[in-house]
Amino acid sequence: MFNNRVKIKTLLTGDALTGSEVIVMGWVRNFRNNQFIDLNDGSTNQNIQVVVALDLLDDATRKRITTGASMRVKGAVVPSLGKGQKVEVKASSVEILGDSDAEKYPLQPKKHSLEFLREIAHLRFRTNTFGAVFRIRHSLAFAIHQFFNEKGFIYLHTPIITASDAEGAGEMFRVTTLPTDNPPRNEDGSINYKEDFFGKSTNLTVSGQLEGELGAMAFSEIYTFGPTFRAENSNTTRHLAEFWMIEPEMAFYDLEDNMNLAESFIRHIIKYVVEHNYDDLEFLDRRLAEEEKQLPQDKRSEMGLLQKLEFVLNNDFERITYTEAIDILLASPAYKKKKFQYEVKWGVDMQSEHERYLVEKHFKKPVIVTNYPKDIKSFYMRLNDDGQTVAAMDILAPGIGEIVGGSQREERLDKLEERMEQMHIPAEEMSWYLDTRRFGTVPHAGFGLGFERIVLFVTGMTNIRDVIPFARTPKNCEF
Amino acid sequence: MFNNRVKIKTLLTGDALTGSEVIVMGWVRNFRNNQFIDLNDGSTNQNIQVVVALDLLDDATRKRITTGASMRVKGAVVPSLGKGQKVEVKASSVEILGDSDAEKYPLQPKKHSLEFLREIAHLRFRTNTFGAVFRIRHSLAFAIHQFFNEKGFIYLHTPIITASDAEGAGEMFRVTTLPTDNPPRNEDGSINYKEDFFGKSTNLTVSGQLEGELGAMAFSEIYTFGPTFRAENSNTTRHLAEFWMIEPEMAFYDLEDNMNLAESFIRHIIKYVVEHNYDDLEFLDRRLAEEEKQLPQDKRSEMGLLQKLEFVLNNDFERITYTEAIDILLASPAYKKKKFQYEVKWGVDMQSEHERYLVEKHFKKPVIVTNYPKDIKSFYMRLNDDGQTVAAMDILAPGIGEIVGGSQREERLDKLEERMEQMHIPAEEMSWYLDTRRFGTVPHAGFGLGFERIVLFVTGMTNIRDVIPFARTPKNCEF
Repeated sequence: MFNNRVKIKTLLTGDALTGSEVIVMGWVRNFRNNQFIDLNDGSTNQNIQVVVALDLLDDATRKRITTGASMRVKGAVVPSLGKGQKVEVKASSVEILGDSDAEKYPLQPKKHSLEFLREIAHLRFRTNTFGAVFRIRHSLAFAIHQFFNEKGFIYLHTPIITASDAEGAGEMFRVTTLPTDNPPRNEDGSINYKEDFFGKSTNLTVSGQLEGELGAMAFSEIYTFGPTFRAENSNTTRHLAEFWMIEPEMAFYDLEDNMNLAESFIRHIIKYVVEHNYDDLEFLDRRLAEEEKQLPQDKRSEMGLLQKLEFVLNNDFERITYTEAIDILLASPAYKKKKFQYEVKWGVDMQSEHERYLVEKHFKKPVIVTNYPKDIKSFYMRLNDDGQTVAAMDILAPGIGEIVGGSQREERLDKLEERMEQMHIPAEEMSWYLDTRRFGTVPHAGFGLGFERIVLFVTGMTNIRDVIPFARTPKNCEF
Repeated sequence: MFNNRVKIKTLLTGDALTGSEVIVMGWVRNFRNNQFIDLNDGSTNQNIQVVVALDLLDDATRKRITTGASMRVKGAVVPSLGKGQKVEVKASSVEILGDSDAEKYPLQPKKHSLEFLREIAHLRFRTNTFGAVFRIRHSLAFAIHQFFNEKGFIYLHTPIITASDAEGAGEMFRVTTLPTDNPPRNEDGSINYKEDFFGKSTNLTVSGQLEGELGAMAFSEIYTFGPTFRAENSNTTRHLAEFWMIEPEMAFYDLEDNMNLAESFIRHIIKYVVEHNYDDLEFLDRRLAEEEKQLPQDKRSEMGLLQKLEFVLNNDFERITYTEAIDILLASPAYKKKKFQYEVKWGVDMQSEHERYLVEKHFKKPVIVTNYPKDIKSFYMRLNDDGQTVAAMDILAPGIGEIVGGSQREERLDKLEERMEQMHIPAEEMSWYLDTRRFGTVPHAGFGLGFERIVLFVTGMTNIRDVIPFARTPKNCEF
């Protein structure tokens, strides 16, 4: 047995261990004055200070205490005289587990750009920024499972490989085992997908929603939490080819129930992180403030990170219809001064600049926009009585834009079939989906949350590649 | 707001609601004597009995109360005189939400074969068996997150699309956006993968372990829980092309620490299900007993499902080395009577028949086998001092075979490079992986658990296609 260490987080919280002999293990962040080691094990951003008496180690060993080296320290937990920590470890023995050549180790204790760290994504977990980001990402994921589990939702693993192309056609990754070089062909020269692994052409899923609805029609309330994919050639700070989505789907919910759930959901997971990761949030709050100092005044956030999260916890989201949103935009000074690049009129999809105006300038808080024109939304959204709009809802967040997209689903078979025909969705291939409307259909609703979007929102990071361990983007698939 | 129902599980547990007026919604499982509706909402396998007075509904409405129809019932919760339930709902109003044509609905209240239900996987969630299976699957998933979260592990989303082919080459799905029909080619006629979405040839991951190790070298303890893929043409009851894996990876762990963690992990998640899904387990226990009645005596399980789970909770796993396992097999009556189909000798991989003998006949409990010959294991497993074996561990379970495969990892750069060279693993492409050994390497270990395998074990189901919502197998990718 080797794993008899005390985690640094445990050491630093509570005084219970003061006076006792412990073993700590971790990686050297810094070694000062030949005496003070800042040791980190990833359980927290805080380092434990290990004090090494000058006569404890020979010179050769002391030279091996470099940034990035790993070690096993035995020592007594004593009150610290230094600033910033209550306790430190007075080493009685120090064993180097793994060296880290100071000439070669890229993570020397100085400030590195996020761009540089992205290129060494396999090492960036060892920095304060990414330590905080990925501990928060973990907490958000856990809070999501906890939220739904407590409400009795069933976690449903919807398929990743799918033959369905009801959504997102043209932006999907093909999954195949056919030889690229010389695939089998039919007599007419077309590719013979019958020879492919699944006997047909298959893709990576863009959403688990349709399968999620199948589960909701039996368990009432389900959610998915899995990877989804877009083969979209977008090199932006907001797009990934591979990202994680949460998609709850609920029988017996209408649009209002859906909004209520989404709002309490977002609040729950933020609250969880504020309660469990406060020191990481404080670090990121300071980091963001530092970053923004370099921006011109008008580009800076109105609120600090922690302030923003507290604000979301304590204020209801604004709820407006799409029609009201368009009216607000048309009446805005920005519109009158022709500051919007894209057209504003009823019937067109709002662009990022419009959403940001609503959220950041007009309401200054998250906004739920409902009842969009049917022509800019998906076939499965429930047609409202006006015949023109559907019972959709998007949640827009400051600095991020859309974080949730959802709707009440069209539960009426005839209306759904009509929409599918209008939108050229092949009904015969979707017979399994229509069965839910044929047999015991019920009012139901659901939404999708892009996980990385909420991690961006909660961490204050600005590039989506910095909140997923290993980003997949056009021409980029490292590690 | 539509969602003002009480869940049937809430109604049936505790007496708090007796006497009050409630709304319940769900699907009709059965309608007896024109008076008694068995209504189910998926929160539990138990139905609530809704009593409809003969004069409450007209004939036309009453005819619509068919199996599979959905309804909204308002009524008083009253003590039940019937068997099997403490309370029932005396309906004051019944509203049919969605009809279910008795002529067409495939799930009439009678016994259906699992094969038939597999073909209507979108509806099978509505049966008692699959209701129980997927509620248990949910609980297992939650228990996994809870176990690791409480221990301070970080949930790491390792990439699904990967360019790495260090493992499982030849059994991977290719991910591409190149046109199948006429892909771009280089001058020498080979496919020009530079034109592919990621600028290189990419695959679906077979394991998140290597990336998981990168996380463990910063956070000490991480785990993955995500989909993994094998393009293996195996049409068996144990193989899926798409399945979910849990892969914890821990710095500062040796093989013994690894075994201790795996054992307490398995025990924790089983305990959670026994505590939270007892009625579902009871149902599956009875189901299995019924199924096995049709088998000849010697093919039946020695223990019932619940008995088996209790046994695992209360008994330590057996721990033996591979060498001891071979010795036991060689000394076995089965070997002496030439009952094994495959060879038994030191150095060859054990086959299913050998593993089953050890687990089901010899030890009659889960067995952890350690220290396998290096030549039958992966390059990253730590070489033991004998130079012949590696610090691997497989956990074998009765009825399932291998449910966990793990090892202490080779943390010594020189030894790892030597193994990679011997096994023709391209070191230059794996430079990021080797960096963990270059900079602050530490003893570490990890394991992988096939999620569907443990769901099989806990539910007593025998075909892996019956424990994942929508199975992907050769020539099969429906829904």
